[in-house]
This record gives sequence, structure tokens and C-alpha cells, in this order.
Amino acid sequence: MFNHKQTKNRLPLPQGFSAAGISAGIKKKNSDMALIVSETPAVSAAVFTTNQIKAAPVKWDLRVVKHDCAQAIVMNSGNANACTGVQGMTDTEVMAALTAGKLGIQPLNVFVCSTGTIGKPLPMEKISAGIEKLFEHLSPENGMDAAEAMMTTDRVSKTVTAEIEIKGKPVRITGLAKGSGMIEPNMATMLAFILTDAAVEKHGLQCLLRVAADSSFNRITVDGDRSTNDSVICLANGMAGNDVLSRDSQDWTLFRHTLEKILFDLAMMIVKDGEGATRVITIKVRGAASHGEADEAARAIANSMLNKTAWAGNCPNWGRIMDAIGYSYAQVQEDKVDIDYDDLPAVRGGTAAGTSEEELIQAVSKEAFVIHINLNLGRGEAIVYTCNCTEDYVRINAE
Amino acid sequence: MFNHKQTKNRLPLPQGFSAAGISAGIKKKNSDMALIVSETPAVSAAVFTTNQIKAAPVKWDLRVVKHDCAQAIVMNSGNANACTGVQGMTDTEVMAALTAGKLGIQPLNVFVCSTGTIGKPLPMEKISAGIEKLFEHLSPENGMDAAEAMMTTDRVSKTVTAEIEIKGKPVRITGLAKGSGMIEPNMATMLAFILTDAAVEKHGLQCLLRVAADSSFNRITVDGDRSTNDSVICLANGMAGNDVLSRDSQDWTLFRHTLEKILFDLAMMIVKDGEGATRVITIKVRGAASHGEADEAARAIANSMLNKTAWAGNCPNWGRIMDAIGYSYAQVQEDKVDIDYDDLPAVRGGTAAGTSEEELIQAVSKEAFVIHINLNLGRGEAIVYTCNCTEDYVRINAE
Repeated sequence: MFNHKQTKNRLPLPQGFSAAGISAGIKKKNSDMALIVSETPAVSAAVFTTNQIKAAPVKWDLRVVKHDCAQAIVMNSGNANACTGVQGMTDTEVMAALTAGKLGIQPLNVFVCSTGTIGKPLPMEKISAGIEKLFEHLSPENGMDAAEAMMTTDRVSKTVTAEIEIKGKPVRITGLAKGSGMIEPNMATMLAFILTDAAVEKHGLQCLLRVAADSSFNRITVDGDRSTNDSVICLANGMAGNDVLSRDSQDWTLFRHTLEKILFDLAMMIVKDGEGATRVITIKVRGAASHGEADEAARAIANSMLNKTAWAGNCPNWGRIMDAIGYSYAQVQEDKVDIDYDDLPAVRGGTAAGTSEEELIQAVSKEAFVIHINLNLGRGEAIVYTCNCTEDYVRINAE
Repeated sequence: MFNHKQTKNRLPLPQGFSAAGISAGIKKKNSDMALIVSETPAVSAAVFTTNQIKAAPVKWDLRVVKHDCAQAIVMNSGNANACTGVQGMTDTEVMAALTAGKLGIQPLNVFVCSTGTIGKPLPMEKISAGIEKLFEHLSPENGMDAAEAMMTTDRVSKTVTAEIEIKGKPVRITGLAKGSGMIEPNMATMLAFILTDAAVEKHGLQCLLRVAADSSFNRITVDGDRSTNDSVICLANGMAGNDVLSRDSQDWTLFRHTLEKILFDLAMMIVKDGEGATRVITIKVRGAASHGEADEAARAIANSMLNKTAWAGNCPNWGRIMDAIGYSYAQVQEDKVDIDYDDLPAVRGGTAAGTSEEELIQAVSKEAFVIHINLNLGRGEAIVYTCNCTEDYVRINAE
């Protein structure tokens, strides 16, 4: 059902979608503008950054998603168009208007995304010429070009496709994402576009996307920095010809699980591609006084630089985990805490469980491992996915 | 009045205080145990980590400080005696008892401090032999040895002395601290001992120490990790012969300012010596809705790895500051935010102020600079001192 390993120019888009990715000269090298167009108006849903400081395109997209339908996404990398004031809003509107003009639709049917440096005005001459060029390359075959144009410091492009059958009609869902962790050098953003030819009722799609984002993109962290531009946008154009899916439909669960899996897979690709990262670590907290407190404890562990650097050094330093949960907002009772690396007990009742250092080192030397923390206080649970922090992270971000 | 640059063996202790620093073989190299003794019972005050998980010696010291007086501090580096359960408590009590036995005083008149790896039992044979050896080296001349034995990854020992006159009587206050930032590789702690021969009323001293710690040690951050062992302990033995100082005394303000300055200077030494750090950055936030919110905004900026790495790269990336205040718990209105690097405007009304990139780069290339953030919403103010994060930080902590 799922297909992660697309080869160049072979990202299968759902029916009725075309894409393009080109170089407009915004970045010094590589492609930096992408366009996605649906032949027909599509139902849209979106979730955005919770940062109080939102980039101009995010403010625009918050208006777009309120409309019944949308038909295109135009994006640039290399410049975030954030903290750019009135000029920034105008520039975003121009991007939407130019794209809408070529398609003969309304600007408010066009999502706009930007990712890159904060605080610099968009180079609008390059952007305008770029939009012209994007339309020349628009094709159902060019999904991978779009995914590549989204990249900033990403080491790999991130795409996933799933095909399901809804009452005999084949339905495809394709996801494209960018993000080298939650953060990027001089740039800060994760973007994901989810395209499907399924017909879906708008309110249901929005709820579903929100829930799916909460259990995927909102559960990863590279360093706790939340960007001004984070956006997940979903377009469902209905060209599969299925009866419109809503929460009452028999196939809602199948569609929901598929969408959740796509977002989850894209989120994991982002963590794995965290700047300088070489390990993916899953932090599972249970036994907290509440789910919220479990989340606080898990994030304190995941965002502690002491833990992230210990994981870079294959160091099973559970003292740093105890320290982090101790200063988190979660209630903790020292002598109740249990910690395991995968299935190896590291801590029992707040002190060393007696497993040999060698075994623990082996556990944290794996490319991916799970740290289980049981606070033994209540029924609160949470899971967070993160990566380690190597010297490369600092080098990349200081450059 | 102040004297920062003590030469080896020339740290002047207040009257009646002796000290020692020796190697007990707990660490692979360098000295690792210190002892401070007052000839006469001293009034004590102390503040400790707010981490819910507290090391055994912190739990012990919370009892010691409740007593009318104390007469000694015994400490080891190389092992934090944290997360060590019942055995850890017993070991701390043995350290206090052995020291008290040599002095003919009660164990609860002895403060115990430990700093180093979390979760390993103390090597009690080495500790016991170390206490014997400490008494052999106890002398009013050996303050610097004690300061050196406190060090873990500190690049320099941290001491400061001040002399004031209270109604014709000379009074000395001497501070010794350790901490390479808030955190240390495999170790986590800042410790500070403040000794004075002034006679001071106990409750007043405790209040004063709390306030002084709030505006010094509690305002520095290297990476937001709060240790299980942080302790600031003050002993005032009254041997200067002054009338007992209390909040009603004429000289209270002089004494208070001197003590505050000593804690502040020690705190700045710790930030400057942050692991791998090469810059000290002062974050001043004003115009927040409340002081608490100003503090939240300042800490979000100071603890953002994106900012810390930008400062390592001489990069005046104010977009990362906007991003951090936007995701902090402080209320922010984007178009009201002003940011200055020293006296150079970087942001006005949420967008670039127009100062040239070259000038801003010069500002953040200095060894120390101030970032002023005005949220222009209310009267809340806060100040936080931090350092940059270089590749060395990661290397040290991964090793």
C-alpha cells in the first residue's frame, strides 16, 4: 500500500494533479520554487504553526483554507517572507494573484508557502519570472521536481504515496514534505503537502488532518524551535469519483488510517534527516499524572542538549534523563521512576537497575531505539520522536 | 573593594575560616575533595536546586540549614551522589559524621556537597580516606586549593573576595564557585560557597542570599538544564566582631550590596566559562505584559539552540530571536517588537530596522554584547545572561 522509495520523476500524483519544480535563482544553488495544481477545485484542509509570529504566507493561507475550495499551492524556498511587514503581505498576495491569473481562478484559491531566511524581502522579480517558468514545466510527471524544490538543508527529499480502494474506486494519497528537523540554518520551517483524488467532506478532512498532525508532525522535535512558517496543507480534488467521504462513511476509518500513516511516515523522515543527526530516538512516557504532564516530561528529555549529546556519544547516561524529568513541569517522585532502553531495565525506583554498562551502551548505539519512562503516578501517556545532536548540528547552524 | 584575580594559595579567607583541597582519587586526575571549616559556629543560609529530583547531599543540607548554626562544608567532585537511593543518603550522612567527628561537633552542623556523575554509588573508602587527608591540609592559607578541588570541567577556578568596613570593623566576604555553565559533561552542578566573618542575623541572611541568588545564579543559563545538585551555601561566623547585622542595621545595605556583587561576579564567571563558550550575551527584555512574561521571552531566546549557534558564527540573525519570542509563553504582537544589538537598531515594529548587515555583524562579533528586546506591550522586564554554543560544547558532552 505504501511506497517510500520513489525514483527521480516517478512520484505518482493522484488523478488531476500536476506539479513543477524549478530554479528561480532565489537560492545560490538548486531549485527553489514549486507549484502544485489540481485540474478541478479541491476541498482543502490545513494546520499551521502555533508560533505567535507567523510569516506572511501563513497569514494568507489561514484565509485560503476558510474558502470552500482551493486549486493550487505555489511555494519558494530560500526566503521565509517572515517579519517582513506590509511589504511581505503584499508580496504573498502577488504570488497568489500571479498564479491565480495563469489558472483563471481567484487568488484566494491559491495557497502560498515560503521557507528560508527570516526578515528579508522576497526578490519579487525572480519570483514573478519563476511563476512563469513553473507553468511551463507543469506536468503530472513532475511531482519529484516539486519535492526537490521544497528542500533547504534537507539531505533527502521526502515523499510517500499510498493507494487504497474505496467501494471499488482506486484512491491515491501522495505526501511531499520538507524539513531538516524542526529547524534549519538561517531558515526555519517544515512544510508538507498532502494531495489526494478522493472526494472528502471539508469539515471531516480538517478534523482528520488536525488529529493526524497531532500524532505525527506535532510529536517530533529536533531542538524545540517552532518555526514561523510551519504548514501542512491537504488538497482533495475528488477525481477518484468515490462517493464523498465523511465521518459517517464506511470507509472513513481506512481513509483516516492511510492519511495518518502518510503524515507519520513524512514526520519520521524529517526527524531522521535532522541536521547532523545520526539516530532516531523514541521517548515513551507513561504513568504520568496526566497526558499533558507525560508530554511535558517527554519533551524535556527530548529537548535536553545533555541528552541529545549523550546519544551522539553512545552514552546511556540515564542520570541526564532523571535530571530532565525532574525539572520538567511534570510531577515526579524520584523513587517511583523506572527507565528502560528498549527492553533493558536502566532504572528501577529512581536508582540504577543493575544492567551492565556494556549492555546499555549497545542499546543506545543502535540507529533507532526507544526509551521507556514510567513515572508510576497515574495514567498519563505521551510519545515524542527526536534525534541526537552531533557537532555537525552546531557547525551547520553557525555557518 | 573587590578582588577577582587571586594567585595560587592566596585566596584570602575571612577570619576564623580554614580550607583544604586534596585528591582522593575519585576523579582520574586533579583534586576532588574540599573542606571548609569555621573555628566558631557560624550562622548559615542556603538556596538549592528547584529540580524535583534532588541529590542526597541536597536533601541533607536542607536539614542542616534549618539548624541555628553550622561549622563546616565537606564536598567531593567526580560523583554527584544523585539517584542513589537509600545508600546515597547513608553515604552523605557518613561524610557529615566523619567530618563532625574530627571537629567534635554534630553531623547536622556539617553541609555536604557532591558534583559529578549521576547514578553511581560514592566510593566511600576513597571518601573516608579523603576526609582524613583534608584535615591534614586544613589551613587559612588553602582557600585556593578548595576552589580547585571543586572544579569539574571548569577551565578556571572561580573566586572573589570583598572587604568592607562595618562601624570601624573590617569585614571580609569570600566566594568560591564551580560550574561550567549550568551543566557539565556526565556531571551537572553549580556550587557556590560564600564565607564571611561578619556577624549576621540568620533570617535576614537567608532572605538576602535568596534575593542575591535570584539576581545572579538564577539569571544565568547555558542550556536550560537545571541540575540535581545546585547549591549556594553561606556561612557567617561573626569573628569580625561587629554588632550583629540585621535588616534594621545601618550597614545592612552595604553588606547586602557587597554580597549581591559577589554572587553576581561568580555567576558571570560561570557563564563565561560555559562549556565551549566564547561569548557572553546579555538578554534584556522590557515592555512585556508582566515580569514573568519578560522572563519567559528572555529564556526562550537564551536557550534557543538556533540563537546560541548563530552567536557562535558571528551571525546577527534577529529572525531567530523573533521566532523564539513568538513561541515563548510571553504575549507578543509582531508589529510592536523592537530589537537592538547594543545600541544598534536591528528590528523596529517587527521588521528590519535598516542597519547594515556589516554593522550588526560587528556588534555580535564582540566578546560580550547586550541584546535589547522591547515588546512594547506593558511594563514587564527581565534580564538573562547566557553564552554561545560552539562545536566544542557538543564534543565535550558527547565524549
